[in-house]
Amino acid sequence: MVPPAHASECDEVKAGSGLVPPGSENVWDHRDPGFRTLAELEAIAARRTMGHVWAYIEGGAGEERTLAANRAAFRRWVLRPRVLEDVSEIDLRTAILGNRTRAPVFVSPTAYQGEVHPDAEVGTARALSAAGLLGTYSTLSSSSLEQIAAASHGPAPWFQLYLQPDFAVSASLARRAEKAGFSAIVLTADVPVLAVRDRQAEGGFAIDSSVPIGNGRDILPPSREPELQGEVYRLRSEASQTWDVLDRLRESTGLPLIVKGILTAEDARRAVAHGARGILVSNHGGRQLDGAPASLDALAEVVAAVGNSAEVYLDGGVRRGSDVLIALALGAHAVGVGRPVLWALAAGGESGVRQYFALLTTELATAMALVGRRRIAEIDRTLIGPAPGPARLGERGPDRADGP
Amino acid sequence: MVPPAHASECDEVKAGSGLVPPGSENVWDHRDPGFRTLAELEAIAARRTMGHVWAYIEGGAGEERTLAANRAAFRRWVLRPRVLEDVSEIDLRTAILGNRTRAPVFVSPTAYQGEVHPDAEVGTARALSAAGLLGTYSTLSSSSLEQIAAASHGPAPWFQLYLQPDFAVSASLARRAEKAGFSAIVLTADVPVLAVRDRQAEGGFAIDSSVPIGNGRDILPPSREPELQGEVYRLRSEASQTWDVLDRLRESTGLPLIVKGILTAEDARRAVAHGARGILVSNHGGRQLDGAPASLDALAEVVAAVGNSAEVYLDGGVRRGSDVLIALALGAHAVGVGRPVLWALAAGGESGVRQYFALLTTELATAMALVGRRRIAEIDRTLIGPAPGPARLGERGPDRADGP
Amino acid sequence: MVPPAHASECDEVKAGSGLVPPGSENVWDHRDPGFRTLAELEAIAARRTMGHVWAYIEGGAGEERTLAANRAAFRRWVLRPRVLEDVSEIDLRTAILGNRTRAPVFVSPTAYQGEVHPDAEVGTARALSAAGLLGTYSTLSSSSLEQIAAASHGPAPWFQLYLQPDFAVSASLARRAEKAGFSAIVLTADVPVLAVRDRQAEGGFAIDSSVPIGNGRDILPPSREPELQGEVYRLRSEASQTWDVLDRLRESTGLPLIVKGILTAEDARRAVAHGARGILVSNHGGRQLDGAPASLDALAEVVAAVGNSAEVYLDGGVRRGSDVLIALALGAHAVGVGRPVLWALAAGGESGVRQYFALLTTELATAMALVGRRRIAEIDRTLIGPAPGPARLGERGPDRADGP
Amino acid sequence: MVPPAHASECDEVKAGSGLVPPGSENVWDHRDPGFRTLAELEAIAARRTMGHVWAYIEGGAGEERTLAANRAAFRRWVLRPRVLEDVSEIDLRTAILGNRTRAPVFVSPTAYQGEVHPDAEVGTARALSAAGLLGTYSTLSSSSLEQIAAASHGPAPWFQLYLQPDFAVSASLARRAEKAGFSAIVLTADVPVLAVRDRQAEGGFAIDSSVPIGNGRDILPPSREPELQGEVYRLRSEASQTWDVLDRLRESTGLPLIVKGILTAEDARRAVAHGARGILVSNHGGRQLDGAPASLDALAEVVAAVGNSAEVYLDGGVRRGSDVLIALALGAHAVGVGRPVLWALAAGGESGVRQYFALLTTELATAMALVGRRRIAEIDRTLIGPAPGPARLGERGPDRADGP
Repeated sequence: MVPPAHASECDEVKAGSGLVPPGSENVWDHRDPGFRTLAELEAIAARRTMGHVWAYIEGGAGEERTLAANRAAFRRWVLRPRVLEDVSEIDLRTAILGNRTRAPVFVSPTAYQGEVHPDAEVGTARALSAAGLLGTYSTLSSSSLEQIAAASHGPAPWFQLYLQPDFAVSASLARRAEKAGFSAIVLTADVPVLAVRDRQAEGGFAIDSSVPIGNGRDILPPSREPELQGEVYRLRSEASQTWDVLDRLRESTGLPLIVKGILTAEDARRAVAHGARGILVSNHGGRQLDGAPASLDALAEVVAAVGNSAEVYLDGGVRRGSDVLIALALGAHAVGVGRPVLWALAAGGESGVRQYFALLTTELATAMALVGRRRIAEIDRTLIGPAPGPARLGERGPDRADGP
Repeated sequence: MVPPAHASECDEVKAGSGLVPPGSENVWDHRDPGFRTLAELEAIAARRTMGHVWAYIEGGAGEERTLAANRAAFRRWVLRPRVLEDVSEIDLRTAILGNRTRAPVFVSPTAYQGEVHPDAEVGTARALSAAGLLGTYSTLSSSSLEQIAAASHGPAPWFQLYLQPDFAVSASLARRAEKAGFSAIVLTADVPVLAVRDRQAEGGFAIDSSVPIGNGRDILPPSREPELQGEVYRLRSEASQTWDVLDRLRESTGLPLIVKGILTAEDARRAVAHGARGILVSNHGGRQLDGAPASLDALAEVVAAVGNSAEVYLDGGVRRGSDVLIALALGAHAVGVGRPVLWALAAGGESGVRQYFALLTTELATAMALVGRRRIAEIDRTLIGPAPGPARLGERGPDRADGP
Repeated sequence: MVPPAHASECDEVKAGSGLVPPGSENVWDHRDPGFRTLAELEAIAARRTMGHVWAYIEGGAGEERTLAANRAAFRRWVLRPRVLEDVSEIDLRTAILGNRTRAPVFVSPTAYQGEVHPDAEVGTARALSAAGLLGTYSTLSSSSLEQIAAASHGPAPWFQLYLQPDFAVSASLARRAEKAGFSAIVLTADVPVLAVRDRQAEGGFAIDSSVPIGNGRDILPPSREPELQGEVYRLRSEASQTWDVLDRLRESTGLPLIVKGILTAEDARRAVAHGARGILVSNHGGRQLDGAPASLDALAEVVAAVGNSAEVYLDGGVRRGSDVLIALALGAHAVGVGRPVLWALAAGGESGVRQYFALLTTELATAMALVGRRRIAEIDRTLIGPAPGPARLGERGPDRADGP
Repeated sequence: MVPPAHASECDEVKAGSGLVPPGSENVWDHRDPGFRTLAELEAIAARRTMGHVWAYIEGGAGEERTLAANRAAFRRWVLRPRVLEDVSEIDLRTAILGNRTRAPVFVSPTAYQGEVHPDAEVGTARALSAAGLLGTYSTLSSSSLEQIAAASHGPAPWFQLYLQPDFAVSASLARRAEKAGFSAIVLTADVPVLAVRDRQAEGGFAIDSSVPIGNGRDILPPSREPELQGEVYRLRSEASQTWDVLDRLRESTGLPLIVKGILTAEDARRAVAHGARGILVSNHGGRQLDGAPASLDALAEVVAAVGNSAEVYLDGGVRRGSDVLIALALGAHAVGVGRPVLWALAAGGESGVRQYFALLTTELATAMALVGRRRIAEIDRTLIGPAPGPARLGERGPDRADGP
């Protein structure tokens, strides 16, 4: 990770929050993102982003235990390559909820993309259309969902829904998304209230009504914290909505429902019971409950609980082709990417996002070739094994013959 | 942790030890603590505290193995969130030994609060009264126990007792506490002698008779080290007192007894057998036996041994709302906080302490909402699981189908 | 590892890539490598090598997980010494595929040694001849295979083969090697395409046709990345070659075949089934699939699968005598060394390589003496045990008598 | 550890190797060692020692894996304190091979103490006599064994024997030691040849005939490395001596024999079979076989193998009172201390050593008080438990009730 300190040394023109003078957007649009590796992408993005926005992008909740765990979890698995297979043609295509896509990767929702680059969600949508990939767009998008849909010419995008205090507003958003051409509703289930996010708090970025939202003035961001009233803490009314909100949403829209933010087998079964067609195993990129498990660590229990009743996706810590391969080998149907998309937007707008996904899918194709698999359907559990750590006290090892 | 080096750069007016000119107390009283996160609180406190006092606050025994273990232990557990529960109202209230309190957190005893801020224990007591929380106050308080009791308008505080060489003095302290309105005696069992505390020794702070104690000139701090006499080491006479001191204390006061400093099932059973109503699982904040287990690691064995015979509490490494949740899920009835209270005092006196507990309880309410629990009684072992680390040599992983 | 930054501070004359003026080669040939330890060797090499070449030498694929794992794997084993054995004479001699050699170590193939030092592969061959050790030389050698063979007066060297798009070219290389006096063909199986190597990409070194190859202009380096054509990725045609390429090679040459790049029992069995006489357990020095297991972690499963059907070798992370001993105790017949040979070449050309192997074999003889073994055949599994790490949550330890 | 860089900033007068002008010894003798903690002791010693001698003291073999493991092993155990025991009198006295000593700690042999301080071994002997502790003195002592014996007025010291190429010289040394008043022979078994010690090699200190030895010009230090003769490596003739050398030594001297450098049950049994009365579990302070297990990790298997047939001691990584307690709880009869004695000598000669042992035994008495034990005989396995680390992939934890 690039330390936020680097970001504060930035002296380039900034996007968002009124910091960019009108008419200056072209500064970004035509800039070459110019990165050769993921580390360079992150470094360039850090230099081109205001410090408080960078803290918002990079930070997680609390001490960032879960943020770190998301990456560390991938390092606990090794890939077991098979050689001398015919890998002269690698086909990454798959279908996600019936939508054909060029690869089993999609963009997970992130809010306020306009704070990062003037191309905002429309730029992301154009880049994904060119790449033949699926995007998910936040209730809190800087662009309106109609603008995003209009810019999407590839797989029909998904709309991420933050429950609103008034269910009618939620339902109206879902109907707008359906009408605009989105192909699924991704219901975020892990934000009854925002978590305490230390890095963001220290950086000075606040998720509140001062940040413009493209979907209209009546849309509320999640509430910021529980409020002590007398002897108890009260949350805004959407925190009272429970699983039957899925049933009500299905009455409001014909779009399939995906529940995002599930980390246990128990909740996965409940989601299926309430008609979810997809489950996105996620800890909100380490931005909600600090101490929640890494997404990858929760994946196996969800896959086992769901079986064939729904498609299971994962986001959290996915950066490279080998990460995708590991998640798929553990049972994910497709995986979502979050922060790297913001890095790519910050580094080069639409063209940065295009370049990032070219890198990611080339890496995935390369990793497939190196493990000896040609098709996504050929990825299975035998491709991975646990990465060994030290032995335990008094342990004798797997096959030691002699003894004391 | 903030390195002590930061503290030594401090050029502000200092509290305690005669370093503050008479009449200057208001400098602290009305200063805004001004922190947004726990890390900022610690950093501000480091700047506002003399180096030798800071070494005393932050340091532990020996190589600080146990000090570090206390924090690390929380990172070995993950919280398993349940979503889409009705969490619109979060009620943290509980009863501790029958006293109603606003949350299952209390202040663990720390000595010499007047060295940290002129508000001293009276300031802590006022802040806790406002927050509806329970405080424990040390035999070695800078304020007298009567002053503390007079300032306490919330849950009746607890009095921490260091056994004195002469039991009559111990008994007299217990009777004074009962008379003043304290609601329990917390008998510290893990200090027959002070441990070797390297950081404190290098910093230059000594626990000895030169530091004023509010409870009277006849009260002795713990003895500093074993004394070699001929061929054996001798300790001061309170080190000869054993479990029956609980029986003798119960003859001297009607207050319930809590034993602090228990880390094994064996001792927990003995405490119960001698009439303890509460057991505080603690390693003295890593300040006594370096090499002792993290409090959290010892909790499960104590809870299992005690069953319903006494309430079990924990202190050591508790900093944030998620820490509280983990400890409660492992069976603690309530948890104590130590160093952060000193940070808060140092940063802003009474008002700093108030602000810290507002942060802590808001964090706890948020964490409850994020795991889907509304009441303290709903917290159970299913909320947590072990945080995975690397596999072991030769290990095949949980569900691998193929083999060599 | 020496950070590449050190290399960039280098202001000495450089080898390769036309950077060295003609006639200046003697600058290297007679320079004293002058290292006392392996760390000094690496540091000297870093100073004497251009930054982009150093990044090529030292770097691995992706995030260098596998590169780091190769070294870490050796630290998960301890050596169990036996004392007071007669170790007055230590004999390291062994036979590798029937060739007598002075020690169970050989040089693994590395390309483009002329970029590192003008002595190139011919210098390596001379040094190994003097040491009585076996070398493997890359298809991409800077010297021609005929020059290398002519310089080899010790154990007959091995020829590493990168499959060419046209099998006839592969077969022709194998025949040239046989004719020149090589004693085996080492078929690299783990490069259907080059992996993404971040450090190398950032350093600016490219494996492509701009780097001269000694074996002729018709020899192709591996292809650089999959190419997106329409909706699928295509690789160069050698990526379609499968296990029967071994059978075809055996028709082209009478030399024994060794398959390099095997990390699973499955592939080891297939190699044996297709007539491989040796299996080199390798992850290409962490330069191909990032996320692949450490070679040492894969060794036991390959050894168990192969039994006596073929000799099993290992490379990846071998640096010192104790590493050799650990690998042999786990069942390797001999082990290959890669990067240290390049360090030695960079530091002192032929004489550097000679000095490195004097150090390595002396270390191995010393380690043998210290574990109490005189002959290679006496090395067995009882010499090693797993290095212990921390216990697991709730674990009681091996022989604890009491309980809660 | 203090980095050697600190040592090189030293501008004080130096001891040993002719660097100290004659008559300057009083500079050390009366200097106050002036340390409050172990870390301060090491730092002071580093400042007062020449860089190459410091590298010799602090360094270990190879990559210093075993050196680091010696310390890390202690951190894998926790101490389980028992409170409210009568610990008003702590008696550390024990008998080692029948010799009464003030505490179960002794000085392990280290060579060339005159390089560190002009007080040399005579100073160490005086300090130990004052402390009532047992010392072991090297064949390679700067003082002669007769001088050391004359300075010893406490427990009769032990003489460490390096086997000489000519057994008659070994036997003569043993007889001299017996005559001078030593009470046991400690036969070093783990140095058939010196290991490769990188830090020492880079620092420039050589163990060879240039360093004066107090016991006479005919005494040889261990040989430096195996010598390649033709196709095999040859070691000096003492490397041919095997277990029956114990039988021959017992014919030469009536002193009990202790074998030092044992790390396996197999060797422990052989030592007992050949009449050893004591076994010193040791890896030569991490200075011989790099990759050998930590002494503490090998202790349990040796204790189990030996039973009551011999006393088992340990050295390697012992620094503090809690270390002693852990080793004794795992079955050591007494423990040896090495490097800290050299630090103490370097910091203040005889008086430094006295101060170090006052600190160590006070720490041990304190730790005893804090775990609730009064006598060495009361220390048992129930005082310790394994320090927990992270869980393993897919692990559910000790007492989790629910499941997916």
